[in-house]
Amino acid sequence: MDMLWSGWGDPAKAAPLPETVTGLLRELLGVTPRESGPAGLDGIDAPPSPLGDEARAALAKATGGPEHVRTDAESRIRHTRGKSTPDLLRIRAGEVDDIPAAVVLPGSHDEVLAVLTACAAHGLAAVPFGGGTSVVGGLAPHTDRPFVALDLRRLDRLVSVDEVSRTAVLEPGLRGPACEALLNERGWTLGHFPQSFEWASVGGFAAARSSGQASAGYGRFDEMVLALTLATPEGTLETGRAPRSAAGPDLRQLVLGSEGAFGVITAVTVRIRPLPERRIHEGWRFPSFEAGSTALRRLAQDGPRPTVLRLSDETETFIGLAQPDAIGGTDTPQPAGCLAVTGYEGTGADTEDRRAKAREVLLACGGEPLGAEPGERWEHGRYNAPYLRDALLDAGAFAETLETAAFWSALPGLYAAVRDALTTTLTGAGTPPLVMCHISHVYENGASLYFTVVSAQGEDAVAHWEKAKQAANDAIIAAGGTISHHHGVGTDHRDWYAREIGPLGVRMLQAVKAETDPAGVLSPGVLVPVR
Amino acid sequence: MDMLWSGWGDPAKAAPLPETVTGLLRELLGVTPRESGPAGLDGIDAPPSPLGDEARAALAKATGGPEHVRTDAESRIRHTRGKSTPDLLRIRAGEVDDIPAAVVLPGSHDEVLAVLTACAAHGLAAVPFGGGTSVVGGLAPHTDRPFVALDLRRLDRLVSVDEVSRTAVLEPGLRGPACEALLNERGWTLGHFPQSFEWASVGGFAAARSSGQASAGYGRFDEMVLALTLATPEGTLETGRAPRSAAGPDLRQLVLGSEGAFGVITAVTVRIRPLPERRIHEGWRFPSFEAGSTALRRLAQDGPRPTVLRLSDETETFIGLAQPDAIGGTDTPQPAGCLAVTGYEGTGADTEDRRAKAREVLLACGGEPLGAEPGERWEHGRYNAPYLRDALLDAGAFAETLETAAFWSALPGLYAAVRDALTTTLTGAGTPPLVMCHISHVYENGASLYFTVVSAQGEDAVAHWEKAKQAANDAIIAAGGTISHHHGVGTDHRDWYAREIGPLGVRMLQAVKAETDPAGVLSPGVLVPVR
Repeated sequence: MDMLWSGWGDPAKAAPLPETVTGLLRELLGVTPRESGPAGLDGIDAPPSPLGDEARAALAKATGGPEHVRTDAESRIRHTRGKSTPDLLRIRAGEVDDIPAAVVLPGSHDEVLAVLTACAAHGLAAVPFGGGTSVVGGLAPHTDRPFVALDLRRLDRLVSVDEVSRTAVLEPGLRGPACEALLNERGWTLGHFPQSFEWASVGGFAAARSSGQASAGYGRFDEMVLALTLATPEGTLETGRAPRSAAGPDLRQLVLGSEGAFGVITAVTVRIRPLPERRIHEGWRFPSFEAGSTALRRLAQDGPRPTVLRLSDETETFIGLAQPDAIGGTDTPQPAGCLAVTGYEGTGADTEDRRAKAREVLLACGGEPLGAEPGERWEHGRYNAPYLRDALLDAGAFAETLETAAFWSALPGLYAAVRDALTTTLTGAGTPPLVMCHISHVYENGASLYFTVVSAQGEDAVAHWEKAKQAANDAIIAAGGTISHHHGVGTDHRDWYAREIGPLGVRMLQAVKAETDPAGVLSPGVLVPVR
Repeated sequence: MDMLWSGWGDPAKAAPLPETVTGLLRELLGVTPRESGPAGLDGIDAPPSPLGDEARAALAKATGGPEHVRTDAESRIRHTRGKSTPDLLRIRAGEVDDIPAAVVLPGSHDEVLAVLTACAAHGLAAVPFGGGTSVVGGLAPHTDRPFVALDLRRLDRLVSVDEVSRTAVLEPGLRGPACEALLNERGWTLGHFPQSFEWASVGGFAAARSSGQASAGYGRFDEMVLALTLATPEGTLETGRAPRSAAGPDLRQLVLGSEGAFGVITAVTVRIRPLPERRIHEGWRFPSFEAGSTALRRLAQDGPRPTVLRLSDETETFIGLAQPDAIGGTDTPQPAGCLAVTGYEGTGADTEDRRAKAREVLLACGGEPLGAEPGERWEHGRYNAPYLRDALLDAGAFAETLETAAFWSALPGLYAAVRDALTTTLTGAGTPPLVMCHISHVYENGASLYFTVVSAQGEDAVAHWEKAKQAANDAIIAAGGTISHHHGVGTDHRDWYAREIGPLGVRMLQAVKAETDPAGVLSPGVLVPVR
């Protein structure tokens, strides 16, 4: 099934907002309903593909057949940009200036190498495309050259499972559900459940350092990766012979997060774990974000470590975004304070043991147990927020998210600074926002902050947001946070990323890119500026 | 205190082998006693320093005074090569062809930058020198240029502790015991206890990806590092703003393991943990290395995870090398089978809980509990093996170690291949060896193998060993292992490292080096060949 071209997910699952919510948006944020919905796909005026006959022939040869080189308007529109809110607003408005010249579908590592060679020979850029769920401009290269979307969907095999080592070799085009299903059949799980799970791909998880909602228990995707194969214009890199090694820098960690700029990930060896016997999710209420944060920190530092651990701030709790399915329902008044969700997965005994011990810590930190219902409601709605965004956009509201991470001691200042930046900028622009936040990934030494912003769209929602986002990015860098905890750099974060790692860091990455991709074929302007 | 120039550690702690051991060596391996011990330090004929007056003045200016630029023979001899057995045999024989032109002691990050600038200006190479404990030729650059040993001992501060985030900023010249003492005073520990602990430095731990004997509980050093400052000839790199990030490749993991080739690590932010309330070590006997390995794997994969977890093979158990202090004693007959040591650190309750649950797993895998004594004996002697090596060398024996790691399913083949390579080569050379092995670092997906080889020295012990070591390295690469789990690459492993990461991997690292060190000042030929 193809993703909704103008929004998120399965078009059949789209649902309008309840009247209570549109009323709330109107009264609270001054949101006025849109006159009309987005134009249809066939109403979009896509420019003809600039792909020449020779280039087309070369790409067809590289991929084993002309059917794997698509230049029809629909294919190209469906591979235009990603799924950030500005991406959606622009495509809904028919703006397709970032449209690829073609969609190319290689079926193997060698075909990926051949596509890269053909692109270099014919002056084309190439942008690896997995699930197409980038929210940071990772699919919109900055280049004057025509580019192809290098769609990896045909590389979708579970190649092998090593049950002794507990590893599996996956191809990059596997999407979350297919990957889990293949592993589950054999009794294993990857345990990687980001909000984009239903659409994002294994290659994207690796290339953009994804982190799933069960990261407290299963770790981030970059922590699951044990080996990688990378196809570059200069050949193949194979890295990872042991879980850990002292043989030089960890090249896996140089490829992870490289977002297609160095090469195309064509295979990933990951850690797998036995399917849990049991899954429990529970809700807790804390009197304040600070008290809840302290509870999360204590669990992250001294244990026991739940599998899922998240905490909404007062605003997010009040609005009920922790449970998107419940928004606007009148049957579930939200508790005051801050809602936390804890989850435990594993064997029956281990799950009970950790839950009982974590309960003591949560109680000692001022938590009030709310039972299983809020946890189960969160679990049920965990992939639905992007659908909610579509409905908000349809209703004339603006909704977007951004995220960061820092060490624990920097977190309160970072939280305040980003909230202030967003609120001040959007209020100044005449569209005062609701700014909500949660912690959803915890570590011994720090945690992530995930912000959701809802406002009226105003005159020019994309321009409004650009200023607010810049102010938030500036605040993140000034407050000591990282420009992204799990969305990545893409083109949107590139300038702030350069500030985060400094000029020498940028040069080191540019040097690597120049070595693996001397002609600059791959994702120009993604991650680091073109040198 | 300075390390013994011709061997390991505190000269006052050296002790000859018991007569029972020299008898055993004679009968088992044909070891004949040496006529005489090593020459004295003042008997070594060191060439005069090639450092010119201008270069000396520039280095003195860079370090704030002439006393920080040392060209006397003793200082230079003490900074010649590292502590591999060939290093020791060569220095004992008075071979000082790798001697530095000077020992330079900067006192700050800025002084390190200034030293690098001065070296570039005066045609000198520079080799960062921490504890001087490299066993892989990391301190012996391959260059025709004169080089300075850039000794970091003056950068020895605990800069700061963040008790909320549980992080500490350390300078690279801090050695293990001083670092622990400074943290312990405040109630914290790093938990990093490699065999070289008493002499190795924080900078070396980071640069060479050290792994400590409590890695099952505390992780490897590269897993403890949260941020790094790197001084390079092209300026400073600061990396690490959060425990984890999706902002591009993890540059920390590019600096860790770079062994001084990209720059000099001048500060490291590490994770710290509360001092444990309790430490327990216990011994277990397994009927075979295979049965014991399965037990270790089960604990690593399904828990509970001990803090220390190690297993000697049959030969190492028989010889008793797991407990160096006991070798040659008649009061402690070694058990048959394979000795494992388990350790637990933490709060009283947590320690007891993990110990009880681990006991069930170990029993189920065929383990026989031996009580606390073998564990405590291991703990007592844990840093003593290098002293034992000195005594063996004095007695005319050859003794050296090497190590690797792989995924669990590759481990049995790797074990057999390396043992065979060592045994065949050394037996063929007329010096049949004892080859012993242990697993001392476990992960969910694999483990390390650490080999100890003892034989007669033969006609030319260095040349004998070179062939055996090459055969072992070839076997490691062929059997899918990594060329080093925690010793590093240096110059000794460089050619096999190139095979491990492939030509494109080497080029990527050379490109980074060319960017941070375009004049090739830093550790030429270490890690990757000079391009």
